[in-house]
Amino acid sequence: MCQLFAMNGFHPADARFSFSGFTQRAGKTGNHVDGFGMAFFEGSSDDLSLGDKGVRVFVDSQSALHSPVAKMIQSYPIKSRQVIAHIRKATKGGVALQNCHPFVRELWGRYWVFAHNGDLESFSPNLHSSFSPVGDTDSELAFCWMMQELLKSHAGIPSVAELTKTLRDLMRRIASFGTFNCLFSNGEALWVHTSTKPESPQLYMLERHYPFGNASLIDNDISIDLAQHNGVDDKMVIVATEPLTRDEAWVPLVRGELCVFVNGECLPL
Amino acid sequence: MCQLFAMNGFHPADARFSFSGFTQRAGKTGNHVDGFGMAFFEGSSDDLSLGDKGVRVFVDSQSALHSPVAKMIQSYPIKSRQVIAHIRKATKGGVALQNCHPFVRELWGRYWVFAHNGDLESFSPNLHSSFSPVGDTDSELAFCWMMQELLKSHAGIPSVAELTKTLRDLMRRIASFGTFNCLFSNGEALWVHTSTKPESPQLYMLERHYPFGNASLIDNDISIDLAQHNGVDDKMVIVATEPLTRDEAWVPLVRGELCVFVNGECLPL
Repeated sequence: MCQLFAMNGFHPADARFSFSGFTQRAGKTGNHVDGFGMAFFEGSSDDLSLGDKGVRVFVDSQSALHSPVAKMIQSYPIKSRQVIAHIRKATKGGVALQNCHPFVRELWGRYWVFAHNGDLESFSPNLHSSFSPVGDTDSELAFCWMMQELLKSHAGIPSVAELTKTLRDLMRRIASFGTFNCLFSNGEALWVHTSTKPESPQLYMLERHYPFGNASLIDNDISIDLAQHNGVDDKMVIVATEPLTRDEAWVPLVRGELCVFVNGECLPL
Repeated sequence: MCQLFAMNGFHPADARFSFSGFTQRAGKTGNHVDGFGMAFFEGSSDDLSLGDKGVRVFVDSQSALHSPVAKMIQSYPIKSRQVIAHIRKATKGGVALQNCHPFVRELWGRYWVFAHNGDLESFSPNLHSSFSPVGDTDSELAFCWMMQELLKSHAGIPSVAELTKTLRDLMRRIASFGTFNCLFSNGEALWVHTSTKPESPQLYMLERHYPFGNASLIDNDISIDLAQHNGVDDKMVIVATEPLTRDEAWVPLVRGELCVFVNGECLPL
């Protein structure tokens, strides 16, 4: 199993504080040592309402606790409105770069990023030639099938509401094959699906907005005063497999539901 | 205009020495300050003859001379048999992450990486839905068209010889629209096309093999004894827009020709 982390913000924000707690689970407070990855969407779109089109994805088959790439990420204040990160405990697919999440594909002139926690049993969808897995994880296979079905379902890039309808159906179908916690983004919105299986790991979300208080990480001994780093109109949602801080109101996401986050807010279902 | 750098090796090799000279051109010995990118293919393929399937691409819209990502690359001995790097001087398309080379797409379960130096005039090919540019460079447009035409030309991944035939035709057609120096790789081979235009920048190649000697960078004051870092059976080809070292035999590539490098050797045309 793996662990997931995501951030969706109203303004581009620096995710290093939360990420530094998350990386402790890659060998110190958890055993997710078989690689990690982190994707940042970044502007500048001509039309900001369409989100951020640029993306950079850092992956390493080393653990996030020891990887020089993870160290660099923690010293470089990359500001982003959509962040997706993953620390891996290999179950299906060996320890290799092509098996590290997040995965990326391009469709309709946008990048789409995906990370998954869970195992899918007997999931062998019919893939045409549009999207094929490079590695050998069930996760990348599910992602390629989702991208293929999106392409078949819409003639061009649909609205977030339209996309959500299609994704809800696709993710429900994938989730019937096993544990399917996933993060998905095109730079415009963040979609989060929580596994339907009662015994599987859940996902938690946290809303941060004005007035900002103090936050102390659970996985290491770091606290910050969020008011020092955020303005009155800053607003963000953080999602993680387990709560990252001890003094904030983490809420478990409802199993089997697809949540959509835009501009640091959860859209009504 | 931009500058290009590539390495194709028999064994995975560390490109930091050459890259440290190359980055000087991003502000010190050259003015290619509008972003940079570097792609590394890495094993492990089950069948090594098929090359390396995993890839990681680092991009930054800062100059390679000052980017924390470039600094990390220079301190992390990533070993790869196929490296493609690019430093950007923006001509078409603003300074933004989505306009940084190298670009990546997936086809037939492999990643394909592309970087370009030059300008294409009035190049507006007919794109279907398979591959679309995310940014607004003529380079990414040319790459998407190449990928689309590859998909149309072959039912599945062809041999390097077959790919070379198709790519030679496609690149010749693109080159008729302007300056087209490019690097292209799928982890199995490195293809290098040199612009047909007599007044445009050229590409140079260098073969390194046993017995290895000394090499001194032109762009900064660093020399190394290559024999200390390479074994008897190491072998590699380095390609760059301008020679990187002063004491090695750099050879200009023939204009209008497509060279193919596999396992650190130039394949016969």
